[in-house]
Amino acid sequence: MARATETETAPKLELYRDIARQLRADSIRCSTAAGSGHPTSSLSAADLTAVLLAGHLRYDWSRPRDPANDHLIFSKGHASPLNYALLRAAGAITDEELLTFRKLGSRLEGHPTPVLPWIDVATGSLGQGLPIAVGIALAGKRPLAAPYHVWTLTGDSELTEGSIWEGLDHAGHEGLSNFTAIFDINRLGQRGPTELEWDLDAYAARVSAFGCEPLVIDGHDAAAIDSAFARARSAERPTVIVARTVKGKGVSFLEDKEGWHGKALNAEQAKQALAEIGDLPSRTFATAKPDPWTPRRRETHAPQWKTYREPVATRKAYGEALAALGQAREDVVVLDAEVSNSTHAEDFKPVAPDRFFEMFIAEQQMVAAAVGMQVVGLVPFASTFAAFLTRAFDFIRMAAISRANIRLSGSHAGVSIGEDGPSQMALEDLAMMRAVHGSTVLYPCDANQTARLVGLMAGREGISYIRTTREKTPILYTDELDGFRVGGSRIVRGGTADDAVAVVAAGITVHEAVKAAEELKDTIPLRVIDAYSVKPIDTDALVDAVRATGGRLIVVEDHWPEGGLGDAVLSALAEAGAVGELVGFAHLAVREMPGSGKPAELLDAAGISARHIVDAAMGLPGA
Amino acid sequence: MARATETETAPKLELYRDIARQLRADSIRCSTAAGSGHPTSSLSAADLTAVLLAGHLRYDWSRPRDPANDHLIFSKGHASPLNYALLRAAGAITDEELLTFRKLGSRLEGHPTPVLPWIDVATGSLGQGLPIAVGIALAGKRPLAAPYHVWTLTGDSELTEGSIWEGLDHAGHEGLSNFTAIFDINRLGQRGPTELEWDLDAYAARVSAFGCEPLVIDGHDAAAIDSAFARARSAERPTVIVARTVKGKGVSFLEDKEGWHGKALNAEQAKQALAEIGDLPSRTFATAKPDPWTPRRRETHAPQWKTYREPVATRKAYGEALAALGQAREDVVVLDAEVSNSTHAEDFKPVAPDRFFEMFIAEQQMVAAAVGMQVVGLVPFASTFAAFLTRAFDFIRMAAISRANIRLSGSHAGVSIGEDGPSQMALEDLAMMRAVHGSTVLYPCDANQTARLVGLMAGREGISYIRTTREKTPILYTDELDGFRVGGSRIVRGGTADDAVAVVAAGITVHEAVKAAEELKDTIPLRVIDAYSVKPIDTDALVDAVRATGGRLIVVEDHWPEGGLGDAVLSALAEAGAVGELVGFAHLAVREMPGSGKPAELLDAAGISARHIVDAAMGLPGA
Repeated sequence: MARATETETAPKLELYRDIARQLRADSIRCSTAAGSGHPTSSLSAADLTAVLLAGHLRYDWSRPRDPANDHLIFSKGHASPLNYALLRAAGAITDEELLTFRKLGSRLEGHPTPVLPWIDVATGSLGQGLPIAVGIALAGKRPLAAPYHVWTLTGDSELTEGSIWEGLDHAGHEGLSNFTAIFDINRLGQRGPTELEWDLDAYAARVSAFGCEPLVIDGHDAAAIDSAFARARSAERPTVIVARTVKGKGVSFLEDKEGWHGKALNAEQAKQALAEIGDLPSRTFATAKPDPWTPRRRETHAPQWKTYREPVATRKAYGEALAALGQAREDVVVLDAEVSNSTHAEDFKPVAPDRFFEMFIAEQQMVAAAVGMQVVGLVPFASTFAAFLTRAFDFIRMAAISRANIRLSGSHAGVSIGEDGPSQMALEDLAMMRAVHGSTVLYPCDANQTARLVGLMAGREGISYIRTTREKTPILYTDELDGFRVGGSRIVRGGTADDAVAVVAAGITVHEAVKAAEELKDTIPLRVIDAYSVKPIDTDALVDAVRATGGRLIVVEDHWPEGGLGDAVLSALAEAGAVGELVGFAHLAVREMPGSGKPAELLDAAGISARHIVDAAMGLPGA
Repeated sequence: MARATETETAPKLELYRDIARQLRADSIRCSTAAGSGHPTSSLSAADLTAVLLAGHLRYDWSRPRDPANDHLIFSKGHASPLNYALLRAAGAITDEELLTFRKLGSRLEGHPTPVLPWIDVATGSLGQGLPIAVGIALAGKRPLAAPYHVWTLTGDSELTEGSIWEGLDHAGHEGLSNFTAIFDINRLGQRGPTELEWDLDAYAARVSAFGCEPLVIDGHDAAAIDSAFARARSAERPTVIVARTVKGKGVSFLEDKEGWHGKALNAEQAKQALAEIGDLPSRTFATAKPDPWTPRRRETHAPQWKTYREPVATRKAYGEALAALGQAREDVVVLDAEVSNSTHAEDFKPVAPDRFFEMFIAEQQMVAAAVGMQVVGLVPFASTFAAFLTRAFDFIRMAAISRANIRLSGSHAGVSIGEDGPSQMALEDLAMMRAVHGSTVLYPCDANQTARLVGLMAGREGISYIRTTREKTPILYTDELDGFRVGGSRIVRGGTADDAVAVVAAGITVHEAVKAAEELKDTIPLRVIDAYSVKPIDTDALVDAVRATGGRLIVVEDHWPEGGLGDAVLSALAEAGAVGELVGFAHLAVREMPGSGKPAELLDAAGISARHIVDAAMGLPGA
């Protein structure tokens, strides 16, 4: 690239230096006021972000939801002082608010969260901001065809997270020219030097090998930064700015010093630091606004669900429901981790190929991309085997902190998958997904129900999860299909005051419970409750069942005993003050490590088949 | 390297081809007998493994626990037909057993597990075998100084998992010349072509950039494979054999064909395939045994625990207990994910620097390395912030299937961490760890207790987990310190028939409960139970508390309401048939998304401080 002459660039460079000075001062001021935080990790990136703010970002701070705005994600979320100083410099927050950093009730939390409207997602678990930024860029490239550029600032310590390389791999593979990562290579991690320290060539080689264009620069040279950002905006490939920086830059007693990670300066130290930096009253600097752009209006109709009469696997119904949804709603996008012919997410592909994203076997990146896509208003569904969603648990819990609206589907859940064995079984997914703040956990037993639950997920806030089954299951529901609701349940056998025992089941075990009810119908009338909404669970129906049966309850689930349906039922009854009314309770769950076998054999070996439900019912006191 | 003359190598190459033919035939035979499995993914790697078996592996099949044996891990666990065919070819299992593949009760599960003594770890969740192999190699290099070489066979689809690159990064950084990965690049994944297909140069560039030596070969050329393995054994860096292969190789109608992933051939197809391969009765082929080697005897004494009198954080006590353990036991190794000055695992380092492993910020690799190290008899403790263990959940659940004995520590758990905010809080870790099969979940409230629990973990089988707290906590225990046990609890206030309400707490909330008990001592006598063993929980103590108080129970925990202590308590009472005796129950847990603030402020804002326990006790019926 041609370099501008010194005369042209001098005032611009002076402006950048002024902003960087203010960002440094404010990073120190707010963390010292808080008594904690990461000033030194902020100082290393002050020049990079100053140049971005005033020279390259296109963002209307008064309209953070403008779809034309660029996106800037601090993957190094601990550099929140810098992130907030940037908001202050842009005039988005006041200096007064800046000084509320890390205090109870402040929007300026220890790590950034979308409680602030200019923050897209929560960061603070390293290695996540970059993969999420890839998702935003992917959505921008297709299906939105949006003009925005996505910038993400990473630390160097986080570059050892595999998720970073999943992200760059996808950026490279998809040719995301609208994506730029800025590696702030300040050499020092939390407890000492990073693995690669200042070996910029090693970083650049990795970046190239993963299909992105590395731009190696001195991260404190404003002119070099300026050129690199210009190149990044115009490149035809995703770019990574590999910037050599100094931790604590700008303050002599902090620069490149160990022992300063995550430590605020005390008042005396801060005074000295601010004197070195040249503290000036905070002021506001202009950012270029994006060119006006209005996204194409996305049509939304009521989906036309297929009606099933013959046994079909709920995973298949999931795929077909996605297809129906994709036809009805242009904002729905689908991601899958290279198993779409198993999860049946592939059924969506012919309907809307530009809204189907093959994420290959990279579950972390898949969830991160879903989080990124909902940032820009899309309605993502991401699917893989339920077992492999455990790979992305950190991303899922962080998605809740991001207040993200994403929908996950886990297929092949439970011992009922059969021969593949325990590595594929997901006997912990309900526990994992229940323990996500504000989550919705659904587990259908029938294809018609599955379609309706998928429809409910599309309109649901927060993290919602649907657990599907590998095997074909009989159709239980052909009527009142619009009656399924989040927080609901259905009584599929019994339902009168004559019921002697209630069986709470979900998914595959509903069918076992129905078989047990048939077998016991003349001796012990069972009420079979299909608790398809595991969270929130239908507390009223549970309390009612306890009362109707004189307190005799069985829970049967294809899951470990911990954290799943059994815990959900007891917790709901306890919350409702009805747990004391239990006179007999049995919890059938998978208690030994399963092996391989046929689905029916494994259900039986695990003690969760109809036969065991019959035994449990007969064993309850007074039943 | 000089290539051997044709005359020398011809008989050897013929032998390799014979073995490969048998491996192909057996892979088809066993999967066809099972009616499921992955024959085509086995066929692509048959030549690679044939050459390894007869030409390069050093393994005494009659002594799978021989510490001098090489290790071979199928990271592509779905190629289990090949893995089992290899065992058959080595004479480790009979042909009869081979044909039990995937049947109920067979040791030959759908994916390999250590139910078979020649299998080190369970695989089947892709991207895990390689990082575990890195752990075995790391242990071999130091501290064992063992002669073994570690080989791992990966598929190409799994190379998009970030964990693969975490593994190679560590192999490169640690210079693991005893490590070789074999990339079986057969171009086809489950649902179609892989991301990079046959772009061997791209793979080689990534391997080089991550510090390993790539050896690019035709994976069906026995001579080339032979040379590559020889080079791998003698290289001074970790090696990766990037082998171009053909999925379904050796059977014309399977070769490089889509639609055959994970499908067994039917009887007719199998007959045709076997005719093409040239089926011969299975026979046994010799493997070179390793040179005799006896590891240095590792001393074990009783650890000398520090006794604490003043408030200290349990994370600090954890670090000091590790140090004491490291001094007493030479088999203990410690791993940390770049936060050892926060988890305090760093205290172990001066005691035994050769047994401390800095895993940088790569939690998946950290857990994988721990699993690898226990394969070779070491006693690993791995620590990071509790929140970031969620990153490794898939590895932890797989470790349980591996029947691994590993110990995990999660620090900074709960809202009581204060200013850092929810991304660092781990409000789901108890749910996650309880839902691991056979796990032990410990949560100390005091430094002396912490040390004793760390001691118990060292001798514990399975996956054990200790949750530690950031803040200093008062010392509650100075007596009967040897009385702490897995499955135990302590009554710290009350304990008589006069108790009106029982409060079950653990960790930080024990101290809040104690404060509440002090406050209520003249009005509502509280029994405060320190449930430091969350799993297994002390059911007897809970039942006793319910009976003593006439059924009045409060559970208070610094965790989301789902899957943690509250669920554990209710489940235990239900299991014991005592849940019906509850007349009043309150569950205090974190129910809203926290922000930043001081620890005491956040405990109070979450409704789990002493004040809220007092209110809850006063609100119970009849209290």
